[in-house]
Amino acid sequence: MNYKEVTWKNKRQIGRMITMVENAVEGHEEVFEALYEKTGSAYVIGITGPPGAGKSSLTDILARSFISRDKNVGIIAIDPTSPFTGGSILGDRIRMNELSTDPRVFIRSMGSRGQLGGLSAATSSAVQILDAVGADIIIIETVGVGQSEVEIVKHADSILMVMVPGLGDDIQAMKAGIMEIGDIFVINKSDLPGANKTKIEVEAMLSFMPKKSWRPPVLLASATKEEGIEEVVDALESHRAFQEEDGLLFERRKRNLNELLFEILQDKLFRQVKKLEDYPLVLEELTEKTIDPYAAANQLFEKI
Amino acid sequence: MNYKEVTWKNKRQIGRMITMVENAVEGHEEVFEALYEKTGSAYVIGITGPPGAGKSSLTDILARSFISRDKNVGIIAIDPTSPFTGGSILGDRIRMNELSTDPRVFIRSMGSRGQLGGLSAATSSAVQILDAVGADIIIIETVGVGQSEVEIVKHADSILMVMVPGLGDDIQAMKAGIMEIGDIFVINKSDLPGANKTKIEVEAMLSFMPKKSWRPPVLLASATKEEGIEEVVDALESHRAFQEEDGLLFERRKRNLNELLFEILQDKLFRQVKKLEDYPLVLEELTEKTIDPYAAANQLFEKI
Repeated sequence: MNYKEVTWKNKRQIGRMITMVENAVEGHEEVFEALYEKTGSAYVIGITGPPGAGKSSLTDILARSFISRDKNVGIIAIDPTSPFTGGSILGDRIRMNELSTDPRVFIRSMGSRGQLGGLSAATSSAVQILDAVGADIIIIETVGVGQSEVEIVKHADSILMVMVPGLGDDIQAMKAGIMEIGDIFVINKSDLPGANKTKIEVEAMLSFMPKKSWRPPVLLASATKEEGIEEVVDALESHRAFQEEDGLLFERRKRNLNELLFEILQDKLFRQVKKLEDYPLVLEELTEKTIDPYAAANQLFEKI
Repeated sequence: MNYKEVTWKNKRQIGRMITMVENAVEGHEEVFEALYEKTGSAYVIGITGPPGAGKSSLTDILARSFISRDKNVGIIAIDPTSPFTGGSILGDRIRMNELSTDPRVFIRSMGSRGQLGGLSAATSSAVQILDAVGADIIIIETVGVGQSEVEIVKHADSILMVMVPGLGDDIQAMKAGIMEIGDIFVINKSDLPGANKTKIEVEAMLSFMPKKSWRPPVLLASATKEEGIEEVVDALESHRAFQEEDGLLFERRKRNLNELLFEILQDKLFRQVKKLEDYPLVLEELTEKTIDPYAAANQLFEKI
């Protein structure tokens, strides 16, 4: 396949290219070589938040909204956790598959197995492939919210943090260290009791955070009732315009590329170490305590 | 300081050695060189679970229980999230500081800044230092539960998963991918309504998981009311005996050392790449799209 000539219509080829990169099959580096210069025009939205917040429904309705504006939409659904994540996710995927019959949409699920440089690098690679072949908008949607999800959505240009009314103190606490990555906050299921209270709480929490030039808005919405969605799209466009005007988008993408670079480097190193003849021996010595961890690492590093 | 001669009584020296390794200061590799052969006798317990589950109280009472059996107890409290994690944690730390006046106890908090090979490697290093200088029991306690916490407590010999009655579906779902690391489950705050129901739910969840030779018990306890604690200690001892008998402990530690080895290797690579003269240039080219991420990684890797 001539990678340079794959377009948005060639869904099967797009899928194959992503699989190649994801599994680091022979030739995957050529996919990048061919496509990388064509990247940069898609806008990447990360959607994260706790399970049950309605991230899939919001992804769904946002995708429809972009489609109605004649945009090509790529959706990457991420589940970094183990196989038994339960039925609701599967249900979401099936529901979203209705979207996938639309020629302007490409949907891809990504799990946690054996990716090149980890899930974060694999996601980033998938984003770049979609970007190169003609996506206008790419949505990365996570299943839960945690450190690994944070690593992944960090590659996005705008991050939507989806929350629900009545999150207990526990979940609020869990979000420390996660809250600050949100560019736009959406209190979904705004018809539930306590929506306004949660909005106020989130705003209060944000006011304690280090001030950035962009002030994250906190919006009420209901994805299933299709309420407040235009406001979310408007906020995304404001954030995009804000970043483009101040050169922030360029800086953000540069930072993300730097991260990707190190993820690929790490992967390279690990693969080479595991192939070393000395590796099992050194590990044995380490376990027997005849060599310490730093000396062991030095020894293996020297061999490469 | 002569590292080999530091003993459990020299709290200040222990603290300094951990700081050296944590910040990778000049000479930190010598700490390991001197101490590594003395490691292996401490038993390492990881305590994790959602915020608010009472992990600190449980750590506290377990530590007291081990002290009463004349054990030296090292406690490493981990907070991988950002500075604003809220007041309750600080409160816990202050409360735990009462414990720290006991000569048989050494307490250390670890945050997320700039550690050698990341927080996971830094924790593992701290564990080994405590082990070498005379800890009998080392407790690693996390603030929350997520991917990064999982990475950290994985270095333990036994993992206690602490939960509370009435966790909503949301939190249950969040725990997929996390549940399977637990060796012993403790439903803390067992006096709250729904404790038995949560116990049954956890047991049901466990029954869906791939069967392992060790069947994780699910225990009811109340750390603050000091109920069910002996059962937790007994379960820990059973798990230890089980692993020691079947050689599983050796295998587990070997696996953990392998992880540590790769964390140190990664750190080494990253430090060297960042020092390369070409690194800013390659990053610039990457951002300008005159080179693709894989080619950029190859180029930097060659230079090392």
